Amino acid sequence: MTPAALPDLATAASAVERRELSPVELVKGCLDRVAARSAALNAFIAVFDREATAQAKRAESEIQNGRYRGPLHGIPISVKDLVDVAGALTTSGSAVPPRNPTHDAPVVAHLRRAGAIIIGKTNLHEFAFGTTSEDSAYGPVRHPIDPSRSAGGSSGGAAVAIVEGMCFGSIGTDTGGSVRIPSAACGITGLKGTLGEVSCEGVVPLSETLDHVGPLTRTVTDAALLWHAMMGRPPRPPQPAESLWISTPRRYFFDVLDDDVRELMAETIRRLQKAGHTVEDVAVAHVERIADVYLHISLSEAAWYHAPLLAQYADRYTPPVRLRLEMGRYIQAEDYVRAMHARSALRTAVDRALEGADALLLPALAIAAPPIGAASVVVGDTRHPVRALMLRLTQLFNITGHPAIALPMGIGRDGLPRGLQLVGHRGATDRLLEVARAVERQITGGAGSVGGGTG
Amino acid sequence: MTPAALPDLATAASAVERRELSPVELVKGCLDRVAARSAALNAFIAVFDREATAQAKRAESEIQNGRYRGPLHGIPISVKDLVDVAGALTTSGSAVPPRNPTHDAPVVAHLRRAGAIIIGKTNLHEFAFGTTSEDSAYGPVRHPIDPSRSAGGSSGGAAVAIVEGMCFGSIGTDTGGSVRIPSAACGITGLKGTLGEVSCEGVVPLSETLDHVGPLTRTVTDAALLWHAMMGRPPRPPQPAESLWISTPRRYFFDVLDDDVRELMAETIRRLQKAGHTVEDVAVAHVERIADVYLHISLSEAAWYHAPLLAQYADRYTPPVRLRLEMGRYIQAEDYVRAMHARSALRTAVDRALEGADALLLPALAIAAPPIGAASVVVGDTRHPVRALMLRLTQLFNITGHPAIALPMGIGRDGLPRGLQLVGHRGATDRLLEVARAVERQITGGAGSVGGGTG
Repeated sequence: MTPAALPDLATAASAVERRELSPVELVKGCLDRVAARSAALNAFIAVFDREATAQAKRAESEIQNGRYRGPLHGIPISVKDLVDVAGALTTSGSAVPPRNPTHDAPVVAHLRRAGAIIIGKTNLHEFAFGTTSEDSAYGPVRHPIDPSRSAGGSSGGAAVAIVEGMCFGSIGTDTGGSVRIPSAACGITGLKGTLGEVSCEGVVPLSETLDHVGPLTRTVTDAALLWHAMMGRPPRPPQPAESLWISTPRRYFFDVLDDDVRELMAETIRRLQKAGHTVEDVAVAHVERIADVYLHISLSEAAWYHAPLLAQYADRYTPPVRLRLEMGRYIQAEDYVRAMHARSALRTAVDRALEGADALLLPALAIAAPPIGAASVVVGDTRHPVRALMLRLTQLFNITGHPAIALPMGIGRDGLPRGLQLVGHRGATDRLLEVARAVERQITGGAGSVGGGTG
Repeated sequence: MTPAALPDLATAASAVERRELSPVELVKGCLDRVAARSAALNAFIAVFDREATAQAKRAESEIQNGRYRGPLHGIPISVKDLVDVAGALTTSGSAVPPRNPTHDAPVVAHLRRAGAIIIGKTNLHEFAFGTTSEDSAYGPVRHPIDPSRSAGGSSGGAAVAIVEGMCFGSIGTDTGGSVRIPSAACGITGLKGTLGEVSCEGVVPLSETLDHVGPLTRTVTDAALLWHAMMGRPPRPPQPAESLWISTPRRYFFDVLDDDVRELMAETIRRLQKAGHTVEDVAVAHVERIADVYLHISLSEAAWYHAPLLAQYADRYTPPVRLRLEMGRYIQAEDYVRAMHARSALRTAVDRALEGADALLLPALAIAAPPIGAASVVVGDTRHPVRALMLRLTQLFNITGHPAIALPMGIGRDGLPRGLQLVGHRGATDRLLEVARAVERQITGGAGSVGGGTG
């Protein structure tokens, strides 16, 4: 079976529940696909073949004995190698000495209790501090469609593992877009919830007041299943979301987009309107502060965590990550405090933009997956630094804490996926998932490409 | 009538409600005492004679017409000159250009709606950035018992105004102890609630994540009345607090105390035990980090607010305040972030120390009011910097956000008051007030002095 023809998580889970599909087959299929493609794409850092196979057998026997735990039972899941899994090293994609945790991070522990099978740990941008997953001690994560390109990052391996059918759900982390960026680049779904909603315990911090943990999956329904399981909550039956009010923040967020993103976005809006939803422009205040606020907070907080590691192991970091961490050490507290003040203003600005709306709609990523090694890309007439451009549309919602989800919105003329983003009200991640399901319905089963894409 | 013989707020309020006492007499008495003593003690920066007199007449007529609003109606209250009162300058005790607010700070607006009469604005340590109230463009606030001594700070004028009967309640602010320190130094009651409980809007910030607004009064009952009125809440009937469990954090907090504080504290504990309450030692973890964490947070946040003012008006600040503000500009963001992490650990440490207890009991101030101009004082065999020593026992609860109240615990051999401090559970300021009332009952009507004090 080609990866694309594989069932999604929810479909596989139903088949497992009906005992038409065995966790043993599921795990074997995933491990086979890891074996076939992971080395070429650098998707996984560690694969738990034996443990996963043993767990699959146990799950199979539990389910046959009528002890079905719910939709994650017997389902192979991967975990970004920034998140602790007991008994496995947490490398953070770095040559800096790894953590050797004796406990699962709470998100992993919840998944295990729900019956999920952790099949391995995925590759990432070193210490999650980058948008391309190319700076990793385990090699650059490569895009499944074009291996000369980045898979996006920092949860690049997590996204590749979903696209390639190496698992049915991935746990990633998102500090400035690290779940949503690779999801958009690879054409899958990636969610970060409201800031603080999911525990970041047992996760190597990048920037503690911006860090989120979230799922990468094929569909919104799968994201919701994994999201609730990560928090130890029971699955939530889908609620209808009809006649939506969607607001598009065009200023800043629609200013720098490649043509395919722009056209697919316009097509998405047309479809939503045709389906009876309202789509209207809205302004978000203080957008000119976003990059500066993100930089001051993330660099300062990263510098705090890495200071003792840099003192001992500076030469083990990849040079680009080391450089950014060392830059962070020169930020003044006064400037950090100033950024925290602007952060409050931005939070209020997004709250205001959401007033009366179900969600904000904008692209998740301004471009397709960039070539590995590119420091800059040209959009329109202007050359932009890759990192700043890739963070441009996602980092705000780490600053403000609003839940945000990336969805595939189609394939560009270059055959590469493009992603949209929906942003919900703080504390209302479940509602965002319902809105996302309604939007997803308008996109799938339709065109999904621009000008006869070759993908 | 001597100030000490004046009724407290609650007693005056009852007499006003019964129409036995007119707001006009109350205001006149206060203004007379301001006129008699404020210049010598530098207690007030602005006095609203005409407005207060006019408001008193209006209050009198409302009450005579049966429109009694509650216990603050017609009661003269003072406001620290760091808090906006519409139509009056907010000088912050500084020669730096003042704010000229068109709106009352919410706490002031709530008091006005409750019928309180704002009679003037009290002197303070410049920008609230000091513990003695001696660095002020309006002269040092002097101690009512010994004018060569500091009244404590930064809300020094607020405390003097209560001691001298210049008002029946004062609004102060507390970033590291600025309500509790002058309360202890002057022998009155001063409360800061849980962090964030009362709005700091319309208050010139010192360190926004540490700032609190709180009342200074004669008694705990008065503090509770003012506390609820400040938040726009109705008065809360006293609840009994019997058979208390009080924990004393001896390590660090009892290490450096003058002999009179030590003896009065021991006497307080004996009385509480005699009254049937349990008093047991408890350890607070990480106390060695307190001063460092406070310094990094407060200096950094103060530097943020003052940066643009320093750029224009550096030479208008008093030299000690300017020096501390300029020091703050050299703190690194990494160190601020490190302090914020230690802050979380300290918050947990205080929560743990409070487990199973009604409150923590410790001194509010390690010494009596220090001489104006003293940079250091000797306690035991060691010379201590005044500022560090005065902050030592209070600043932790600004870091952690726990509600804390200073109560007079008696008079030392030098005739100067000493103060104790009770610390409650976060979010349970009302409960702390009940505990404080029970403790106050054991102290008043008893000895209240050491070795036949001369006060």
